[in-house]
Amino acid sequence: MFYNEWILSNDEYDHDRRQSRNALFTIGNGYLGIRGFFEEDEVTLESNGGIYMAGVTGRGTYDAWEGKSGELCNMPNIFRVSLRCGGERVDGFSSISDFKQTLNMQKASYSRQYIWTTSQGSRIEVAFERFAGAADIPKIGQRIIVKALDPVDLSLSALLDSNVTNLNADSFATPRPVQPGRNHFVKRNVKTSSLSVILDDPDSTVLYFAQQATAKVNGNPVAKKDFISDNACGAIYDCSLKAGDILTVEKVIYVASSLDDDVDAAQAVAGFLSGDVGFEQEFRAHCTAWLSAWETANIKIDTDTNDDAALRYNIFELLCVCPRHTDRVGIGARGLTGEMYEGCIFWDNEIFVLPFFQYTNPQVVRKQLTFRYHTLDAARRHAKRNWFEGAMYPWQVNNKGIEQTPYECGAFYAIHIVADIAFAVCRYWEVTGDDEFMVSYGTEILYETARFWRSRCDFSELDGKYHIRAVRGPNEYDVYVNNNAYTNYMAANNLRSVKQVFDNLSGSHPKEIERLMNKLGATRQEIDLFNEIADKIIIPYDEKKGLILEDDTYTQRRSLDLKRAKPTGQRIIDSTMPYEALPLYQVTKQADTVLLCCLYPNDFTQQQKKNVYFYYEPRTAHDSSLSYAPHAILSSQIGLKEEAYGYFEKSAYLDISDRQLNTISGLHFANFGGTWQAVFHGFCGISDDHGKVSIKPSLPDKWNRVTLNCFMYGSVLQITIDKSSVVVHKKKSGPNPLIVRIEGGDYLVGGEPLRVTLGERL
Amino acid sequence: MFYNEWILSNDEYDHDRRQSRNALFTIGNGYLGIRGFFEEDEVTLESNGGIYMAGVTGRGTYDAWEGKSGELCNMPNIFRVSLRCGGERVDGFSSISDFKQTLNMQKASYSRQYIWTTSQGSRIEVAFERFAGAADIPKIGQRIIVKALDPVDLSLSALLDSNVTNLNADSFATPRPVQPGRNHFVKRNVKTSSLSVILDDPDSTVLYFAQQATAKVNGNPVAKKDFISDNACGAIYDCSLKAGDILTVEKVIYVASSLDDDVDAAQAVAGFLSGDVGFEQEFRAHCTAWLSAWETANIKIDTDTNDDAALRYNIFELLCVCPRHTDRVGIGARGLTGEMYEGCIFWDNEIFVLPFFQYTNPQVVRKQLTFRYHTLDAARRHAKRNWFEGAMYPWQVNNKGIEQTPYECGAFYAIHIVADIAFAVCRYWEVTGDDEFMVSYGTEILYETARFWRSRCDFSELDGKYHIRAVRGPNEYDVYVNNNAYTNYMAANNLRSVKQVFDNLSGSHPKEIERLMNKLGATRQEIDLFNEIADKIIIPYDEKKGLILEDDTYTQRRSLDLKRAKPTGQRIIDSTMPYEALPLYQVTKQADTVLLCCLYPNDFTQQQKKNVYFYYEPRTAHDSSLSYAPHAILSSQIGLKEEAYGYFEKSAYLDISDRQLNTISGLHFANFGGTWQAVFHGFCGISDDHGKVSIKPSLPDKWNRVTLNCFMYGSVLQITIDKSSVVVHKKKSGPNPLIVRIEGGDYLVGGEPLRVTLGERL
Repeated sequence: MFYNEWILSNDEYDHDRRQSRNALFTIGNGYLGIRGFFEEDEVTLESNGGIYMAGVTGRGTYDAWEGKSGELCNMPNIFRVSLRCGGERVDGFSSISDFKQTLNMQKASYSRQYIWTTSQGSRIEVAFERFAGAADIPKIGQRIIVKALDPVDLSLSALLDSNVTNLNADSFATPRPVQPGRNHFVKRNVKTSSLSVILDDPDSTVLYFAQQATAKVNGNPVAKKDFISDNACGAIYDCSLKAGDILTVEKVIYVASSLDDDVDAAQAVAGFLSGDVGFEQEFRAHCTAWLSAWETANIKIDTDTNDDAALRYNIFELLCVCPRHTDRVGIGARGLTGEMYEGCIFWDNEIFVLPFFQYTNPQVVRKQLTFRYHTLDAARRHAKRNWFEGAMYPWQVNNKGIEQTPYECGAFYAIHIVADIAFAVCRYWEVTGDDEFMVSYGTEILYETARFWRSRCDFSELDGKYHIRAVRGPNEYDVYVNNNAYTNYMAANNLRSVKQVFDNLSGSHPKEIERLMNKLGATRQEIDLFNEIADKIIIPYDEKKGLILEDDTYTQRRSLDLKRAKPTGQRIIDSTMPYEALPLYQVTKQADTVLLCCLYPNDFTQQQKKNVYFYYEPRTAHDSSLSYAPHAILSSQIGLKEEAYGYFEKSAYLDISDRQLNTISGLHFANFGGTWQAVFHGFCGISDDHGKVSIKPSLPDKWNRVTLNCFMYGSVLQITIDKSSVVVHKKKSGPNPLIVRIEGGDYLVGGEPLRVTLGERL
Repeated sequence: MFYNEWILSNDEYDHDRRQSRNALFTIGNGYLGIRGFFEEDEVTLESNGGIYMAGVTGRGTYDAWEGKSGELCNMPNIFRVSLRCGGERVDGFSSISDFKQTLNMQKASYSRQYIWTTSQGSRIEVAFERFAGAADIPKIGQRIIVKALDPVDLSLSALLDSNVTNLNADSFATPRPVQPGRNHFVKRNVKTSSLSVILDDPDSTVLYFAQQATAKVNGNPVAKKDFISDNACGAIYDCSLKAGDILTVEKVIYVASSLDDDVDAAQAVAGFLSGDVGFEQEFRAHCTAWLSAWETANIKIDTDTNDDAALRYNIFELLCVCPRHTDRVGIGARGLTGEMYEGCIFWDNEIFVLPFFQYTNPQVVRKQLTFRYHTLDAARRHAKRNWFEGAMYPWQVNNKGIEQTPYECGAFYAIHIVADIAFAVCRYWEVTGDDEFMVSYGTEILYETARFWRSRCDFSELDGKYHIRAVRGPNEYDVYVNNNAYTNYMAANNLRSVKQVFDNLSGSHPKEIERLMNKLGATRQEIDLFNEIADKIIIPYDEKKGLILEDDTYTQRRSLDLKRAKPTGQRIIDSTMPYEALPLYQVTKQADTVLLCCLYPNDFTQQQKKNVYFYYEPRTAHDSSLSYAPHAILSSQIGLKEEAYGYFEKSAYLDISDRQLNTISGLHFANFGGTWQAVFHGFCGISDDHGKVSIKPSLPDKWNRVTLNCFMYGSVLQITIDKSSVVVHKKKSGPNPLIVRIEGGDYLVGGEPLRVTLGERL
């Protein structure tokens, strides 16, 4: 892999790894995710695209909590190219040299090129480039350039092809293939330059695809022949090239769906086809939009390592998946880059992904939390179905907020997501001060989730405490436990948040709050009860050891020899033990109490954090991509620089090096967010601390300097940290004066950059 | 249903219930189980026999702990009859009158009869009868009698037909159909009067079937035509009958398998075909054998209810399934009567079924426990695979003792079976004094299972106790718990048993014991350690309430409204709640602590038993056929006569009335054994109490008198109990004087019957 500031590229073609590389080179615009598949791929079981559209799912394969599951649909292949050279099919991999695939993160484009030699020895140089429009999201661009190195006859078809199935990537086989999946289109309507399909989903969603294409040889137009079949349409270009001649095909595709907000999709397509669009013009607008996105999002690391580009890749994919255009879809665990988890949304979103947007583009967080608000009724239904009250946000949801976890697979236990969503609401409010959001959406979420906890907590006469039993915390190797510290702590804060909000907003927004109380049947008594419960929720803790206990019985279990349990690096449950055996042992799948310390950096002492780290880390299998980043953050906070950097590396390169051998089934978005957090909260030590910005940097030895931007309390800051100083520059002022706390000192940040030399006060 | 002393019969043909009736009318001889299917059934998806052979399994459908599961095979249909009357097919159900199907429990034969009317109005009376030879188990008899009520032409084929599939009965659909399953025969060899098939199992088991048939009209022989096809063979008889003429076809089938102990199956078949056998002669020998079996096994109840016949049916099926001929097969949960649980063997055998044989035919218990001994190596492997020591008898095994529970379905937790087997070994030894068995098999089982517990118990510094964590007790609604009282109590006794055996046998069998110690690497230290652990195993108990606690946290859970959870009588998990939700609640699937009190009737006080019953019974869903009988026993013991009788009724008629709607997939053998125990231990109150026979009767109001026989300490007793007296008659003397304890008085039973009038000492 080759790394450059804005470039990630690969110049070795490895057939066995190509499907996972397809995922790695995904581009997107939050509306569509497009894997880096080969345009020339024939529609076979091994290769049929990999394009996903936010919120578009079809009939799935297993029993979920409300009937059958759904699954993210592989869209029609809008980039399909059939290329023949001298009558021979160019497949893009079997007779190639000088192969190269490149992600340009600045322009958010993906390109691929190679030299092809026919059986007669004639050579052509082929290059593809594509982008998913950031300026105008329904517009997708594709450019194909074929340069003749010898005289050749070419035939090139540029198609929209609906003959695809889901990929069904198999992460567990070697080499990891894709299997034939479902084709989700029950009906197709194919015209000369457009096609539409109807999905087999409950809404009979209609998807529209149209294209405008041009072809030129050395700048001179090439005649087009129309192609049309039952499944596909497009243009065919035939031409004879002399050595040195260049065929350029440029295509803009328009995508629309009946699910789109406030848009008549069919009309939009007609408008597109009758209009005048060009690849170059669209691409320019697209690049401008990305420049603007990078302005706040980019982090520049001065280092001799590849970490600068690797971190940028993590951020890049977060920007690609981000649905800026709507508050009706959430960000799935694998984004729009693969089919694992059926495209569903988990707690990953609130706890791992949203913090990145929180500090770089808060409007995205508002939209994502509004998405959760839209699914509040589904969460209420889920609570009722399980004999609880309020809103029980399900564990794994589609865009309607309906539980998609396979039935009897632990969704009943994994309720910390309810408090995770409340946590994100509170953080958003604290850092942005967006009262309007709270009045319209946030407060109702907090109230209904607090109600859930009220109905889920059990008071015990034995100890006068509230217990939360039969839960599965972030440590999913627990099967179920009683009183998971993470869950209980988060639930207590969820319960407490209601009074905080009401106390705060009743003055400024009395009418809205009263209306809300009426709507919810809320009472001051109930709010007080929330607080009373919160104060009495048991947080398992060993006073003598100063240790947060993961749950009621964790420390009483037998210890596990992790080397024996995980001899090859494969997950424990894939190598030596059945899942059900794990509750016998002290074993943690992924950061649990460690994560809790990361989420509340100011609630725990350094000694408590150290105790947590040194007790649990040796017992943690890291059998999840959600484990590395919290460990990087906490170990950085307690001064374990080497360990922290080790975890950062595992996190930053997770998909780039396909560490968990399952990148084929989609990129790991929680981990991307975690990588960013490891830098922001970990190495740079930045956190919002009750109205102040706290900066406690601890850069890795291999890094000289980090420069980043962030939104904080309404201001936009540029922060530069090197080994000896912190520079804070307020690029945009918020409503209130901004105080930065560095090494115990509080500094007011004004118009001039603030420079603090590190170590001065020590 | 019609009940008579020895008869269970049904004269209503109900098409929807016919498959469950097929199971109900199963006959067998421990070698074969034969459902009461219709001889005329064509080989279709809905009807293709239902004959199972002990220990004969083929390739199954799911992932078990050592590769794919196996499943009990449906054997070739050896009773297949094709009957045509006036050229019309007689299917046995569509144009019938005077239908009747009858189980003769005394003769262990099943018969069915009806009158058939052709489309032209001609009538025949058809009758089938069958038995599975008890005197000579490979021999199966069939008789077909057709009486012409009008002049008719008949064609009757009597076949051996290998064109069958497994039944795949669906207990959950309405009406409950059978689905096409697998045909397990990979190769067939069909001859004129015999066929053999090779199974798709790892041993390529060969099964042999041969028949000798005769046909007569009014006593005069009918000419035979041979039938032979790819799958089937047999004889065809054509004849014209006048009104009143009777065609009688008699057939003896010989069945053999390459798995049979010490038998050359092919040779045996050849011997059978060249010999001279007759239905009448075989049937007579068969009936004599059953008369002898009933001599000890029968219980006579004097009552106006149907309970006498219903109880007899329970005993009858236990006798049918009992493999008297071998110690290489165990008795499966559904015996040889259906395919549920793939024919596998569970703890049902030791805890529910064997007690019946213990007191009526101890040799069967010896064979069943020897079967467990033969699988000791598989149990050792299972322990090792799970990082434990000694022998971990798997939860659900085939006849090789290999774990067949689907992977990740709780087998890791359900370890009480290990102690259940040890319990049965100890009981067998105590009641029979069979030292030779203990020296050869029993001690090794006890030692290796004790070793398992040693490795499975965890010492806690906190309370100085041993804990057994992550288990699932008889209450399978627990998912997993720590310190299930039943499991811990049984494990402690398992551990203690080793020292008891060594202390007892070291004197009488010093060489054998020394040899065994060498073989096992056993030491006195280890035996002492077993006892030390046993004494320190925690048994959850509430001193204040005098209540055995089901596990560490049961009583702390929230209470469950059983009426809401089980509104229709369907199991909770099939109606309102996911299985995983249940650990939040105080809910017991089936007798757990109640069962413990039944197994150790003399270890707990009346008050403790009452406390257990009154606390847990209202929390028990009875969502298992294993629940009624222990509740009948315990409620009888604590004087709740009405409740006890209610539970007895549920148990005794469970399959007869298809109470759980899953009789279609096989009869419930644990429940049969439980019904017997409810009468023997419950109403009659008989138990062996450290060398004495304790009798504490409490007959139901509707019963006048019970007479039964039992083996006890080497003697055979006939015990008659009525409302006012107990009469004990020693029919066979054992090695030691026999003392009976009734109402606190000890009586020596000599040659004369002992009569004790009840209430005299009170």
